[in-house]
Amino acid sequence: MSATYPADEGEQPGRIMSGEMAEQPEMLRRILDRGAPAIRAVAAEIAGRKPRFVLLTARGTSDNAALYAKYLLEITLGLPCGLASMSTTTAYGAKPDLRDVLVITVSQSGGSPDLVASTKAAREAGAVTLAVTNSPDSPLAAVSEYHIDILAGPEKALPATKTYTASLLCLYLFVEGLRGGDGAAAAILPELAGAILARKDEVRVLASRYRFAERMVITSRGYGYPTAKEAALKLMETSYIPALSYSGADLLHGPLAMVDNISPVIAVVTDGRGGEALQPVLDRLRGRGADLFVVGPKAQVEAASAGFVLPTAGVAEEVQPILEILPLQMLAYEVTIARGQDPDAPRALAKVTETR
Amino acid sequence: MSATYPADEGEQPGRIMSGEMAEQPEMLRRILDRGAPAIRAVAAEIAGRKPRFVLLTARGTSDNAALYAKYLLEITLGLPCGLASMSTTTAYGAKPDLRDVLVITVSQSGGSPDLVASTKAAREAGAVTLAVTNSPDSPLAAVSEYHIDILAGPEKALPATKTYTASLLCLYLFVEGLRGGDGAAAAILPELAGAILARKDEVRVLASRYRFAERMVITSRGYGYPTAKEAALKLMETSYIPALSYSGADLLHGPLAMVDNISPVIAVVTDGRGGEALQPVLDRLRGRGADLFVVGPKAQVEAASAGFVLPTAGVAEEVQPILEILPLQMLAYEVTIARGQDPDAPRALAKVTETR
Repeated sequence: MSATYPADEGEQPGRIMSGEMAEQPEMLRRILDRGAPAIRAVAAEIAGRKPRFVLLTARGTSDNAALYAKYLLEITLGLPCGLASMSTTTAYGAKPDLRDVLVITVSQSGGSPDLVASTKAAREAGAVTLAVTNSPDSPLAAVSEYHIDILAGPEKALPATKTYTASLLCLYLFVEGLRGGDGAAAAILPELAGAILARKDEVRVLASRYRFAERMVITSRGYGYPTAKEAALKLMETSYIPALSYSGADLLHGPLAMVDNISPVIAVVTDGRGGEALQPVLDRLRGRGADLFVVGPKAQVEAASAGFVLPTAGVAEEVQPILEILPLQMLAYEVTIARGQDPDAPRALAKVTETR
Repeated sequence: MSATYPADEGEQPGRIMSGEMAEQPEMLRRILDRGAPAIRAVAAEIAGRKPRFVLLTARGTSDNAALYAKYLLEITLGLPCGLASMSTTTAYGAKPDLRDVLVITVSQSGGSPDLVASTKAAREAGAVTLAVTNSPDSPLAAVSEYHIDILAGPEKALPATKTYTASLLCLYLFVEGLRGGDGAAAAILPELAGAILARKDEVRVLASRYRFAERMVITSRGYGYPTAKEAALKLMETSYIPALSYSGADLLHGPLAMVDNISPVIAVVTDGRGGEALQPVLDRLRGRGADLFVVGPKAQVEAASAGFVLPTAGVAEEVQPILEILPLQMLAYEVTIARGQDPDAPRALAKVTETR
């Protein structure tokens, strides 16, 4: 595997993003080898506190990682979860009773003042607080009772890639720790991630389909739903294509009106119950003649207009999201390059600096 | 006020939707006069059960009403809340421990099999269950321990309008009942709703701005955020414009890249702390030269490119969402008419019938 994805060098557009994408297999291995024991220890301590409810707090890409943790916690542990509406505490000064509640704050930088403030308030309100961050010395880690270092290394690209997969893997290992599992399902991920990232030529051809797309709909169900949301965010941040993500069930409740042969649909089909639950949605999309791009197992891709076959045989459904997002990060990158834009220089974030 | 908004008659496009929009002031009055005592009685019983957490379950438009309830419950009662990820129970068979948990399911029809199944499972898992529905005889009401009839009358239009505002008002009265409030802040809503719906000529002019828009971004913070999400859904269902909704804080974390003078922004600015928390976002959007349309108080509209002045003086922030959505329902309707489409016949939903 080359040091950067897709072997861009020097001052080429997107080299920062591509370099960080390429680090993911090695990073996943580092988390499994060096990070897992500390995560297991934190999980054991928190399990002893017997939380009855979990609130997850995050923004942007980290919010999608938090949503993945919500599925894991609810499905594997039966712990009811909520995603925090942060403004209730930071803007309205709500004082919830958080005894028996575990508050998990996910943040790459750990520096966002409102995340720090809401985590501090949660701890004062009786919650067990856990920060999941790439910055162990950050203010967020300091105000949290526990913290997990996601070990992704410095992230310089504006579109977050490696910190997303690092957060997913750390959250998976944490939930495994809570329930006394061994997390063995993750062992195969570094190797498979490397194999996926090596398929850059394939993604480049697929990206040409979206060279002139004016909108995109991304759907999934269950464990794949956070992947759909993160893929939509990545496409928007890099290529500016308006990408709308819906759970398959919600898509049928209205937004389907937007889907036709000019609104391509990307479906993230996990190999497992989430993918099964998505079948009626896929059937309806095919019945409407939608241009359907599938990320998932071979048979699913073959029944679609196009797709990327994921190596899912023998991979537990709950860790598949750590692989699923990779071809979609690659797609966002390649579509952006194909449009003559620079994934490393989203215009908004540059302009924001100017206007401050 | 005419019987239909905006006085369409006979077989004109959109007459079903416009008729139901026009019913809202009278419907709000009916809920206050005839529905409130029953809602108060249900709230008193549930308060006696002392729930410690609330899970809200819904889809589509009802999901946005559920999000409004989440803000109310967290801010005014300090009850931590989560929005249910339904597939965790229906697809994965999760068995969460729901003792001390209030599960509120919001559904216009009360007939969706997965909502019925997940509510039944929640009750078996120890939750106090409450259905908020327009169909008191529905399967959902039958499986729930408690139910609230939103009294909206039959809804025939495919884009839901009156059942949204009815759900909001009923949820407001319910939360008021839980905390022992009198709900007096809602008394003024029917009159103000009538005044807003009468301003159809104004909205028609505003709609012409979006005749050729290819995408739209809608943002808000706090109590106005559910309004932003519902407005986006309404615009997509009727006009098929890809409309992306973000909390103001999330908008700054990436999707801002999509905003420029070709991506118009609609900001829902509540008169209160939510609007205050949105100010830095509005400043940044103005600094980028975004085309900013504001629904909110007069001073906010005057500082924007265009807008709709909401009568908010003396109106409590927590009931403003019941008014805020009205001009945005009208806007979705008028933009759709301006595009030569029929708001009563979203192409997807018609086609769905064919493909079954």
